[in-house]
Amino acid sequence: MTNKTMLTDEYQLTMMASYLDNNIDDKATFDMFIRGLPEDWGYFIANGIEDAIDYATSIKFSKDDIDFLRSQGKYSEDFLDFLRGFRFNGEIYSVKEGEIVFPNQPVLRVTGSRTEAQFLETAILNIINFQTMVASKANRVVNAAGESTVLDFGLRRAQGEDAGMEGARAAYIGGASGTSNVKAGKEYGIPTGGTQAHSYVMSFDDEADAFRAYAKTFPDRSVFLIDTYNTLEGAEKAAIVAKEMEKQGHRLVGVRLDSGDLEMLSKGVRDIFNSQGLGYVKIYASNDLNEYKIEDLVRNGAKIDAFGVGTEMITAKPVSAISGVYKLVEDTAGPKMKFSPGKESNPGKKQIYRISDEKGTFLYDVMALESEKIEGRSLLEKVVENGYRISQRRDLKEIREYALDSVSRLPDSLKQVRVADKYEVRKSEGLTSLIDELGEKYLQSLPFYSVVHPISINQ
Amino acid sequence: MTNKTMLTDEYQLTMMASYLDNNIDDKATFDMFIRGLPEDWGYFIANGIEDAIDYATSIKFSKDDIDFLRSQGKYSEDFLDFLRGFRFNGEIYSVKEGEIVFPNQPVLRVTGSRTEAQFLETAILNIINFQTMVASKANRVVNAAGESTVLDFGLRRAQGEDAGMEGARAAYIGGASGTSNVKAGKEYGIPTGGTQAHSYVMSFDDEADAFRAYAKTFPDRSVFLIDTYNTLEGAEKAAIVAKEMEKQGHRLVGVRLDSGDLEMLSKGVRDIFNSQGLGYVKIYASNDLNEYKIEDLVRNGAKIDAFGVGTEMITAKPVSAISGVYKLVEDTAGPKMKFSPGKESNPGKKQIYRISDEKGTFLYDVMALESEKIEGRSLLEKVVENGYRISQRRDLKEIREYALDSVSRLPDSLKQVRVADKYEVRKSEGLTSLIDELGEKYLQSLPFYSVVHPISINQ
Repeated sequence: MTNKTMLTDEYQLTMMASYLDNNIDDKATFDMFIRGLPEDWGYFIANGIEDAIDYATSIKFSKDDIDFLRSQGKYSEDFLDFLRGFRFNGEIYSVKEGEIVFPNQPVLRVTGSRTEAQFLETAILNIINFQTMVASKANRVVNAAGESTVLDFGLRRAQGEDAGMEGARAAYIGGASGTSNVKAGKEYGIPTGGTQAHSYVMSFDDEADAFRAYAKTFPDRSVFLIDTYNTLEGAEKAAIVAKEMEKQGHRLVGVRLDSGDLEMLSKGVRDIFNSQGLGYVKIYASNDLNEYKIEDLVRNGAKIDAFGVGTEMITAKPVSAISGVYKLVEDTAGPKMKFSPGKESNPGKKQIYRISDEKGTFLYDVMALESEKIEGRSLLEKVVENGYRISQRRDLKEIREYALDSVSRLPDSLKQVRVADKYEVRKSEGLTSLIDELGEKYLQSLPFYSVVHPISINQ
Repeated sequence: MTNKTMLTDEYQLTMMASYLDNNIDDKATFDMFIRGLPEDWGYFIANGIEDAIDYATSIKFSKDDIDFLRSQGKYSEDFLDFLRGFRFNGEIYSVKEGEIVFPNQPVLRVTGSRTEAQFLETAILNIINFQTMVASKANRVVNAAGESTVLDFGLRRAQGEDAGMEGARAAYIGGASGTSNVKAGKEYGIPTGGTQAHSYVMSFDDEADAFRAYAKTFPDRSVFLIDTYNTLEGAEKAAIVAKEMEKQGHRLVGVRLDSGDLEMLSKGVRDIFNSQGLGYVKIYASNDLNEYKIEDLVRNGAKIDAFGVGTEMITAKPVSAISGVYKLVEDTAGPKMKFSPGKESNPGKKQIYRISDEKGTFLYDVMALESEKIEGRSLLEKVVENGYRISQRRDLKEIREYALDSVSRLPDSLKQVRVADKYEVRKSEGLTSLIDELGEKYLQSLPFYSVVHPISINQ
């Protein structure tokens, strides 16, 4: 990971300068949470946590950075001196990478001096918003695919290199079985796969010759692209070459369809292979797929073993961005909360407890104040203490298994492509009382007309 | 830029291995072009060209990369040896960074050995698709804003760090006046700006005290956020503090609104300031803005001097990805084209000519074969020769000016938020004849039933 210290909104620096200038730097706690679920979604898979921890524990302005900031003529030398030694020295609690989370639950809870804790906002949101979105989106696609596997083919349409890399990783955590992205294979150890492009097939006068040439190079790893001219004719030719391969002791792995009516064509192709004793040849399909199209294909009995999903998974189209925010919940003056409609925040240092039945199925969560004792598994763990990481960065495969095991414990109603149900997140007695108390104080502080027509408070 | 050699789809490597294994490595030309405009869009601003050139001229597999590929057990030692010395040695023609382009026009034209030219596909698409999309989207937002300025506030919702960085750069090229992203300021020299967050205002018991504290630190650079409690009351308090600042010889730069009815509130706030001789205080507005909302605000006379635009500009929501593709157009066997409906490609090595009227307004383009002589300015220039960059990387401000000057030469009908008009792109006589000729050959090659119900060819 590149150093992201300068990857911040300018107001983080100007506010910091002003806090210091006004001798305000008391202890404060911020929650990172996601406001709401996109339409049709039932849950999030928290992701980007490990990167966010690495970021928070590696903040350091270089001499270059300071020189650049000085050149802007906005900051005092005192402040630039302060930045030179600026680190995050606080503590962070977080859910596990791969944990299922719901709206308004703290994903990260950051406590530190106000300047330090506030400063983390921008990069933490940049990291967690995207990775959580793609892991969650990929899981929707994987759920829709049922028994079939899902492969990430999104690199060429991802929003930059990081999006291609972190997107491949997030999709894998969300249940994709592999990626076409070679660099993601190298950096993260994700299984990589590929087939062939139409340009390869078109480089030969005869389609069957293209298949033969490819099988010569990859006798045990070939997936032929069969829709360059006519999918069913392509399947017949692939079957001929597969039979030739058998004679040499090899097996064709699969064929890929990339256009047309995938349901109808996959059934036709399956018949062609099955009728020739080639039942082992797998069928891959791609072409602007998403969870809705895949659900229809599966429901209609399309004979597709693996879906290659590009643009819509790695950009989470049409969602584009989830509503992760970072809000002050407590400072030395006490717990803080917002009251504006649709933008409520929950005050105080909190913990989330997850309640399961005897089979391990998640029943509901309780959001409580840290000081309360509640039954259930607590989701927030201390991962940074005095600015140092105290949790081990976990292995990618372990994170993926954890995420998929967690998904298996969710009620089925939340795993549909169009989710109507809502997971229950209760508030503890302590949290409820605190909210009531702060609400009353807030109402008393308002002029009369504001109580009748509540004004909004934005943070 | 990190080295992107491994940032590729696996099939680029497997196809390369197979081409070599089958002694196929003739000269080939590929076009990178964009299939179609997103709904309501009138044009693209080509962007990412400079990065794509840097990428193509810096390809090099490291020992680490080769070791990783060997560990996959898919490739022969001969092929891995070949990769060790693999470079792009061909030539590239491209439009200028910041050039206006239309669907199906070559943005890049790559000629080289088939393995070299094919290999560039994935990273070139990853680079150009995103940057072109955001530059074009930002320009739509800027057009909608009219006389008001547009600032990029998207970092926290961008799809990763690169998206935040390259997105800020693309938005600037597309006409945004600045960004909140400090790192983009440092790396690219883009003007940065920021205001304050609600958490800053809430850190003081009294809103006016928060403004005073900020003005103390930034007496000549303050923009107060005035909607934390009640926007109009916030404006009154900001006016009081602005008057105090005047007495000390300073001027409040502006105030920001971040919620509510921005049209109504901006008018109210403007009145408050104007009535107190504070006509110089600028009004900034933000809150999930996009070109459609901004157009409405401007049309209804909202008094907003600057729009801060986040999520929707930097992710180009709801578009998410444009349809940039990379297709074979010629090899040693001659010009190649595709015939499948909606996926046509234009054969041969081509040039684009732009025809303007005497005032410099763009009238129409002609897409022609390279061998033809056509009136008009040719858009494709040779930028890479024998694998070496022969064009200077241009300065960002120069690119931005070029892009905005080009936009000023477009007919107004293409610069609306909802574009119904279409820019005319003609095909030259030579190109038309070639397409006819290839079409005839293609029809003759088909079995009779296919001519009646044309089958599709996908590349």
